[in-house]
Amino acid sequence: MQFQVNEERLIGELKTLAGFTGIEPSAIGIAVTRVVFTEDDLRARAWLKELAEAAGFGVREDAVGNTFIRWVGAKPELSAVGTGSHVDAIPHAGMYDGTVGVLGGLEAMRALKESGFKPLRSIELLLLTSEEPTRFGIGCLGSRLISGVLDVKRADALVDASGSTLAEVREAAGFRGSLIDVRLPADFYHAWVELHIEQGPLLEREGLTIGIVTDIAAPAGYRFTISGFGGHAGALLMPDRRDALCAAAELILSIERHALAANAASGGVDTVATVGTCEVYPGAVNGVPSRVTLQVDVRDTDPVRREDVMRAVRADCDALRLKRGVEIEETMVNADDPTQSSPHIIRVIEEVCEELEIATKKMVSRAYHDSLFIAQLAPVAMIFIPCRNGVSHRPDEYASDADIVRGTKVLAATLGRLASEPEGTA
Amino acid sequence: MQFQVNEERLIGELKTLAGFTGIEPSAIGIAVTRVVFTEDDLRARAWLKELAEAAGFGVREDAVGNTFIRWVGAKPELSAVGTGSHVDAIPHAGMYDGTVGVLGGLEAMRALKESGFKPLRSIELLLLTSEEPTRFGIGCLGSRLISGVLDVKRADALVDASGSTLAEVREAAGFRGSLIDVRLPADFYHAWVELHIEQGPLLEREGLTIGIVTDIAAPAGYRFTISGFGGHAGALLMPDRRDALCAAAELILSIERHALAANAASGGVDTVATVGTCEVYPGAVNGVPSRVTLQVDVRDTDPVRREDVMRAVRADCDALRLKRGVEIEETMVNADDPTQSSPHIIRVIEEVCEELEIATKKMVSRAYHDSLFIAQLAPVAMIFIPCRNGVSHRPDEYASDADIVRGTKVLAATLGRLASEPEGTA
Repeated sequence: MQFQVNEERLIGELKTLAGFTGIEPSAIGIAVTRVVFTEDDLRARAWLKELAEAAGFGVREDAVGNTFIRWVGAKPELSAVGTGSHVDAIPHAGMYDGTVGVLGGLEAMRALKESGFKPLRSIELLLLTSEEPTRFGIGCLGSRLISGVLDVKRADALVDASGSTLAEVREAAGFRGSLIDVRLPADFYHAWVELHIEQGPLLEREGLTIGIVTDIAAPAGYRFTISGFGGHAGALLMPDRRDALCAAAELILSIERHALAANAASGGVDTVATVGTCEVYPGAVNGVPSRVTLQVDVRDTDPVRREDVMRAVRADCDALRLKRGVEIEETMVNADDPTQSSPHIIRVIEEVCEELEIATKKMVSRAYHDSLFIAQLAPVAMIFIPCRNGVSHRPDEYASDADIVRGTKVLAATLGRLASEPEGTA
Repeated sequence: MQFQVNEERLIGELKTLAGFTGIEPSAIGIAVTRVVFTEDDLRARAWLKELAEAAGFGVREDAVGNTFIRWVGAKPELSAVGTGSHVDAIPHAGMYDGTVGVLGGLEAMRALKESGFKPLRSIELLLLTSEEPTRFGIGCLGSRLISGVLDVKRADALVDASGSTLAEVREAAGFRGSLIDVRLPADFYHAWVELHIEQGPLLEREGLTIGIVTDIAAPAGYRFTISGFGGHAGALLMPDRRDALCAAAELILSIERHALAANAASGGVDTVATVGTCEVYPGAVNGVPSRVTLQVDVRDTDPVRREDVMRAVRADCDALRLKRGVEIEETMVNADDPTQSSPHIIRVIEEVCEELEIATKKMVSRAYHDSLFIAQLAPVAMIFIPCRNGVSHRPDEYASDADIVRGTKVLAATLGRLASEPEGTA
């Protein structure tokens, strides 16, 4: 299988895609905000569909905006080989998270096609909707619905900060029909491979350029609402206070403390816990906070250990209720299982890298990805490329052109091999 | 001095004023948001000017929107007797803070006028601009400028959340001219009395209906910006984190702890400290916070003790910088002196209450008021009426009709006496 990745085209397209944002470059890099179904997201989608059609691939969209770009194989009746990722970006993020998997996937398909390669199985690129939880509070909307992990009624009822439901927002964006039809059958994909930046520092530290993901850590999201007693910041005396923000501060530190304790106990670094948002009501400089909402993200390769951390946090909540006279309400947004990659696909990627003489590292993905949910219906694996300092979700997120091209080359060869596998291959 | 406060008119006007807000009543009471120079604030001002003109009083406005409603006395050359308060309200506040002093002041003047009383000195009601710090981060804008406490260039350069300066916002609201002209001469008022709800629980607890303020506690405002290191909530491992929100949580608890310690050391309750806002950047559920800004309010009757609290907080900031590898930047927004009421005006109020057979309580105002700054140019005192459960700055803020009428009666009689004092009265 001889093919040529077109570096100029791929890097040029990544830069064009980075331009679909409403914000200016920051001092530290190109800043991208691209929230699902905003004008910038819709412009990026329209441009991608044009690219796919220009390359001669078929395009279909489902009711939640997942976009399927298909290169039909010699035996279209066989289950396809999938790849893909997302193009949405959290506020003030960088230009590589997700996009490398989408444009790298497109380039891999084009490079194979231009080389004259004829796949036995169809190869399909997926642009998955709202991998980021920014708008509706839950990540991987598109891949959760594809795999049936998310109840469709619950999905349509999700609300954004303006109070609009997903049902309303997707219809306004032109994606109509029932979400039930988004779910794909269990044998839809023969195999699925996602190319992504590492979003961590390990490949760079070890001087390696390709990571092969063996496990994706199990993510969970929670919302804690702490209700106390508000009042005037001058007149409400300290002994009479039930300050919701002081209670929230203790909770923030409790969450950090128990994640650190879990790592200390295991001797590892597999547990991470983050409070990413803190909304204060009424939010006035001279008003005692009466209510605070925290959004909490906890991940672990071991879901039991993750639940142990949350159990310890809940015990602290009980103590806080007593000590501070506040109410604390916990809502679980999601609590997903970890997943393991397919040994077969890992082996194919390893063989490809051996041929290309690229050293690899088997590793855990601590960020979660659409592949976590696609794994419900297909064997999956992921290919990681390094990113500078392990930085992601920030304007200074950076992957080198050479690493992007190398990752795309590995992806293309892997897709080519998998798409050549006849019926009955495990 | 015989006069009749018109309860129906006064309470009716308070309810009308509460309607100048963009928000609906909440489950716990009438909710008011009336931020300076918003449409609701401007509508309230226009309506008040109509009321004043209908009552036959002269109206003038200065460059920052302070509104002077004057009943000219028999000797207009003598310094006037002033009263007044504010009508702006923090988000989701109640309907009595400030408004009782403005409409009670207007009603006091009308009641005296309708009784046939002829003041020797002019009596002037002031509607003061932006007592609340909501929009520009600093409270008592109007009274600070009247008394020369706030530099006019600094004032015009203050910015709101949208990035607009006070200079731009006041001009757009129709208040033109230099802020230098806002400052009043030191002998402008013979005396100043402000009627206000207590915003604390003490009068209610003791079953009293009139408080006479002897001291106003010294307020100070600070902004702390904590900068750490952001990244992906899954991939940025715990040992590599410099989480700005975790550092902010420690700072929030440090501020509370040192205020409690100051009270424990003094055996009193005179120190209060509040973190009222907490802005998190980037503020994404799956992003490690890289920057947090806290707004801090510290008050004390003793400014030295207040500074001791801040000194202890700063020592904790130093420890946090080392321990967490974060930067912490402190900006002082304001740090004002406490003030004492005029013994003469206190005596006048006491005499009035004795005549009306109303028991009184001398007390400290822990909330600060425009009177704190008017005190720079005139002898001042304040009249407090009870509010239910000491609650303020919330929709369930409540003062009874009877208490409002009683307070207005005491104010009217006090203004009448003070306005009858001939030249040379101390």
